[in-house]
Amino acid sequence: MAALLPNGVSDAAFTQALTALRSAVGSQWVLDSAEDRQSYIDPYALGDGTDHDTSAIVAPATVEEVQAVVRIANQFRVPLWPVGRGKNLGYGAASPAQKGDVILDLSRMNRILDVNVNQASCLLEPGVGYFDLFRHLKEKKLPLWMSVPGNSWGSVVGNALDRGIGYTPFGDHCEQICGMEVVLPDGSLVRTGMGAMEGSASWQSYKYGYGPSWDQMFMQSNLGVVTKAGVWLQPEPEMTAKVELAFPNFDDAGWAIDILCDLRRRDVIQHNIVFGSPVRAASTMSQRADWYDGKGALPHSVSEEMMKKLGLGWWNAKINLYGHEGTVKAQVELIRKLFEPKLGELKFELWRQGDPEDLSAQGVPTTMGLQCVNWYGGRGGHLSFAPVLPQDGKLALEYARKIKAYYEEVGQDYYASFTIGRRHINNVSLILYNRDEPEAVARADKLYRHLLGEAARQGFGEYRGHISYMDDVAETFNFGGGALRRLNDTVKAALDPNNIIAPGRNGIGTRRPAPNGKAPA
Amino acid sequence: MAALLPNGVSDAAFTQALTALRSAVGSQWVLDSAEDRQSYIDPYALGDGTDHDTSAIVAPATVEEVQAVVRIANQFRVPLWPVGRGKNLGYGAASPAQKGDVILDLSRMNRILDVNVNQASCLLEPGVGYFDLFRHLKEKKLPLWMSVPGNSWGSVVGNALDRGIGYTPFGDHCEQICGMEVVLPDGSLVRTGMGAMEGSASWQSYKYGYGPSWDQMFMQSNLGVVTKAGVWLQPEPEMTAKVELAFPNFDDAGWAIDILCDLRRRDVIQHNIVFGSPVRAASTMSQRADWYDGKGALPHSVSEEMMKKLGLGWWNAKINLYGHEGTVKAQVELIRKLFEPKLGELKFELWRQGDPEDLSAQGVPTTMGLQCVNWYGGRGGHLSFAPVLPQDGKLALEYARKIKAYYEEVGQDYYASFTIGRRHINNVSLILYNRDEPEAVARADKLYRHLLGEAARQGFGEYRGHISYMDDVAETFNFGGGALRRLNDTVKAALDPNNIIAPGRNGIGTRRPAPNGKAPA
Repeated sequence: MAALLPNGVSDAAFTQALTALRSAVGSQWVLDSAEDRQSYIDPYALGDGTDHDTSAIVAPATVEEVQAVVRIANQFRVPLWPVGRGKNLGYGAASPAQKGDVILDLSRMNRILDVNVNQASCLLEPGVGYFDLFRHLKEKKLPLWMSVPGNSWGSVVGNALDRGIGYTPFGDHCEQICGMEVVLPDGSLVRTGMGAMEGSASWQSYKYGYGPSWDQMFMQSNLGVVTKAGVWLQPEPEMTAKVELAFPNFDDAGWAIDILCDLRRRDVIQHNIVFGSPVRAASTMSQRADWYDGKGALPHSVSEEMMKKLGLGWWNAKINLYGHEGTVKAQVELIRKLFEPKLGELKFELWRQGDPEDLSAQGVPTTMGLQCVNWYGGRGGHLSFAPVLPQDGKLALEYARKIKAYYEEVGQDYYASFTIGRRHINNVSLILYNRDEPEAVARADKLYRHLLGEAARQGFGEYRGHISYMDDVAETFNFGGGALRRLNDTVKAALDPNNIIAPGRNGIGTRRPAPNGKAPA
Repeated sequence: MAALLPNGVSDAAFTQALTALRSAVGSQWVLDSAEDRQSYIDPYALGDGTDHDTSAIVAPATVEEVQAVVRIANQFRVPLWPVGRGKNLGYGAASPAQKGDVILDLSRMNRILDVNVNQASCLLEPGVGYFDLFRHLKEKKLPLWMSVPGNSWGSVVGNALDRGIGYTPFGDHCEQICGMEVVLPDGSLVRTGMGAMEGSASWQSYKYGYGPSWDQMFMQSNLGVVTKAGVWLQPEPEMTAKVELAFPNFDDAGWAIDILCDLRRRDVIQHNIVFGSPVRAASTMSQRADWYDGKGALPHSVSEEMMKKLGLGWWNAKINLYGHEGTVKAQVELIRKLFEPKLGELKFELWRQGDPEDLSAQGVPTTMGLQCVNWYGGRGGHLSFAPVLPQDGKLALEYARKIKAYYEEVGQDYYASFTIGRRHINNVSLILYNRDEPEAVARADKLYRHLLGEAARQGFGEYRGHISYMDDVAETFNFGGGALRRLNDTVKAALDPNNIIAPGRNGIGTRRPAPNGKAPA
């Protein structure tokens, strides 16, 4: 008798499925002990995480094994939850949206299949982590840079599929994907873009191929299992320049965001700019108890003192400039001209080819950002809420003021950043909590739901969703009575009639067909 | 009795369909006279164009009318071929791939719904032409620039949907699309990206939305009718600098392409760079008869003389630099350093805000490029073959040499350009002909088929296909026994079970179901 069964699967069928899976990938790569299952539970889960528990884990090593797993899953109607390295932290980590799904762990598929220096691209399996690729580039002394997310434990391809971001010119990770190989839910194999031609010479050169392009369909979705993906890298520039801007007043967000957005739209600043609140910076260097031990949100005076000691403003931004020496120096002058009249003299740090690595400018993997989960002490966790705003400083400031007031009302320390992209602002509200304090967990849930409603009222949609809220977020995309969800579900039903790949991911295929294969009413 | 019936539609059903269409959009907007139908035939058709003749044209003015048209088409199983302005010149213009399809002409839907200067974006209907948008920006004195294709008669949205390109930093037109409104083949309406939220504030700000992103699915395809699309524009820069490079030897392509590709990958040159052969430039300024009246391809000596008189090299490239003054001047110095040792002193032309327009650098609409069709005299036409190569100068040079030899073997003047994109090179081979010379038309067909085979042998796939060769091109994407085509067709069948939107476009839904609704074996 299995400890936990996948949704709609009988004990007998599940036993048969596990036997078939063991025969397909080797018995040591199918895990269903309590201990193994526990190790896949989200370390930051709200509560104990068992509401997203998995029934088993299967870890194939090759494309053919993935195909076999998917066929077996179809045969026994066992839903699979594919993960690259399972580090989707803040959004549910490796845990499935639907309790009981078998985790399809692709971390053994960790081959770097190609790095093309001339073209600054590579071809990766989904188990390749940021540290793996970094080590490879360093060992081979290849003049290529990666872009990494704030916490770089995860999979290069997996993060891109979740539309994660980094902070170099290649930081829109989903946009660096160029061509995929995908096992479709029926177990067949497809290559997208130029890879759809046998012996393609330009699979990693051009994204779109001939006819409709599907790469973006396989992101934040459940329409296939990506087994290879091309990723574009950054050619090492001749020079970089780095500067930190600290804006002393909360209201500086209005004018500062407008200037930064203009520089971003014009590609003077070529990377996603993080414009963050004091707790964002402080929580990677200290714990809350270092500053305050009272209940409720940090008082203003405590924040001011903390900012003074850490050299922070009410908003803080790091800017990196990339290019040939003459260009970088010209951009430095431009930034000085725009900000020095308000902020005083700026200190730029220059880096030239051959200098020691500059961690933050060069896309060097780091896990420093994760320190923040220790802010409240105990077993820390974080939950991200990140709606998309248009580029408008006044609007962003007003929104920030409103959200900050609500954080304070519920007694949560305000932690926000505005990530400035090509034409949008992503307002990440991070909710930190101590998992061992039930009232902190309850507050996190209350805060998330409030933020979701408030954002939707203003027409700001989420760019990504935590597994516990995937349906709730999907519901806010309500144009035409949920027309986009219907489109998603129509394609889902055509490609995955048994709804076996990640049912419910981003709200797609939530209403799983009964085991008789009929869709519910 | 209709002069021409759509595929599989009876005369009686078609008559009923036309009556229903007239009642939906107004009888003056349903055209089926011989004269009207003739006016929609591709002006550059190989032959008389009747193999792609249309049975009728319907021109709705609103989204609701498009929905009504699509529903009527479903009811009577009448295939529709949607066009924005019908100017897909070189690829079939307004003509349907399948003879007899009713052209769904969207050119009356030509409203500029929004221009957001702060965010440098706009929301357009598919009938908005490049000249319309240009006039609007000029009349309102908005500091935003467009990107236009070499011939700018067409629709801004339509060109992007065909993945057309321009030559400014916003020249990858399909990448400037941000959010769509689409009438699906069942007549329902969906908005993509952030527009999927009712009252979205960031529809034109962020492309991907929540969950799978569909914009690229509606490009080069037949899975819906796009009725609105967001388009990103370029904020007017402070300065531009322009230079023309003429490379004296054919073999210069090797090293020159490598340098240009490197500058493009590093975003020093931010636009798609055209690197073109002498006839490319000469054919916009002169006719072949001005230089030569013999049979066969232009002799080498004639080419050399023509190049000398027109100041051309064997390869010619225009480069524009954009940005703030300091940056542009630094980039000018870099270009000088790289090319002057081989080409001698370069003459840059600078433009500053307030100066008269610089036509080629600023995305000003033009139809100059179309002059080339007069090269051979008579009723001229052109056919584009454009496979995608990786960025490798040696490979590109060898390929060019081979293709040039074949042009000369069949007696066609060599006309090529390499368009250098972010990570690829698009080798456009243009085939010019006089439509009134049957042997020229036959040669064009022979040449196209040879180029298609030769490219596929080297692993180079087409980025776009002419209506007469859509299936042939699709067949070259043969990985996994045509896995991508099967994926395309599966989604097509799910969204368009009656196969009524543009059957056969890019090889999708080619095997049209019989009128009884059953798919053929």
